[in-house]
Amino acid sequence: MTDITFTYFNCKGLGEVTRMIFKYAGIDFIDDRFSDEDWPKIKPNMPFGQTPILIVDGKTANQSTAIARYAAKKAKLIGSDDWENLEIDAIVDTINDFRTKIQLYAYEQDSVIKETRKGPLFQETIPFYLEKLEQIAEQNNGHLAAAKLTWADFFLAGVIDYLDHLVEMNLLENSPNLQKVVRNVITIQAVKAWIDVRPQTEA
Amino acid sequence: MTDITFTYFNCKGLGEVTRMIFKYAGIDFIDDRFSDEDWPKIKPNMPFGQTPILIVDGKTANQSTAIARYAAKKAKLIGSDDWENLEIDAIVDTINDFRTKIQLYAYEQDSVIKETRKGPLFQETIPFYLEKLEQIAEQNNGHLAAAKLTWADFFLAGVIDYLDHLVEMNLLENSPNLQKVVRNVITIQAVKAWIDVRPQTEA
Repeated sequence: MTDITFTYFNCKGLGEVTRMIFKYAGIDFIDDRFSDEDWPKIKPNMPFGQTPILIVDGKTANQSTAIARYAAKKAKLIGSDDWENLEIDAIVDTINDFRTKIQLYAYEQDSVIKETRKGPLFQETIPFYLEKLEQIAEQNNGHLAAAKLTWADFFLAGVIDYLDHLVEMNLLENSPNLQKVVRNVITIQAVKAWIDVRPQTEA
Repeated sequence: MTDITFTYFNCKGLGEVTRMIFKYAGIDFIDDRFSDEDWPKIKPNMPFGQTPILIVDGKTANQSTAIARYAAKKAKLIGSDDWENLEIDAIVDTINDFRTKIQLYAYEQDSVIKETRKGPLFQETIPFYLEKLEQIAEQNNGHLAAAKLTWADFFLAGVIDYLDHLVEMNLLENSPNLQKVVRNVITIQAVKAWIDVRPQTEA
């Protein structure tokens, strides 16, 4: 049997998508979480100083999106051809762009710089991305790519609580089709069962 | 026959990796370039306001990394199993992280903010990434993943001129194994032939 460990902070963040995919597929893994206090000790041993990492039979890989894509292949949550996988990859990278723009505001330490970023983010960037993603979800009938359930849907469902936390708002409040994307994932029995028992964390 | 158009600025930037991969594989495509002056007219018609885009038989996809991965599948420059592809994807995303950190400095308009980013970028971030990437290239015998030629190598070879331009230095000057990665790509006959005839651009 394959021995899988997924190591990340005790939060949803960039790790929850992979946890959800493994749970969806019934793939056993060790849900290894470290505390914020332990991070300074752990960081120097991480590839490029970051988590999550995935350890499969003693081999280690890094990068959250790459790990989620690997999990999705094992879970058969990928497209049926190269073009569908391109569609999925493009939406995932677009959600990552959106996240990066939010993080640039949310993690800014300098309050003056942070304030200059607030208007553009909340009045331009967030509405721009949500409007376009909402259109795509509508065209794909409640999915983000290939008009079917793929790991792109899991990607949004896995990261949305973290994004909401960063901007302190319900980002999808006025996006019924994006809400449907998330609902289509979190109401799957195996995913719902995981959500019911997973460690309760804010982000 | 498949009809392929690749649309991007008249530069290497985030597009050259895909052009190089197509040329390597002898896959015909229209190398569609627009001028900087035309960009404001083109931008509103681009998915999420960005390029490059790839058009295959009338269908359009966006996101440079996703497009490069698609091209790499057509060119058989991918790994031989899911784990090797995870390794490749992780290195590519790591190079993108490195690029993003460089861009955050290079494109900063406010000279005071830019100055505060200079020290950390040049004294910490750049040496940190280059040292770790150099180790990986050494372990993989002149490649970035799976100890063989993959699109991860093309990714570095395609983006390095752009990164050098952004920081106005020869980033790989003291990294012989990363130089080898790039050389292993640009000396391939089909790639070399393309480099000899492609439009000459700075970045």
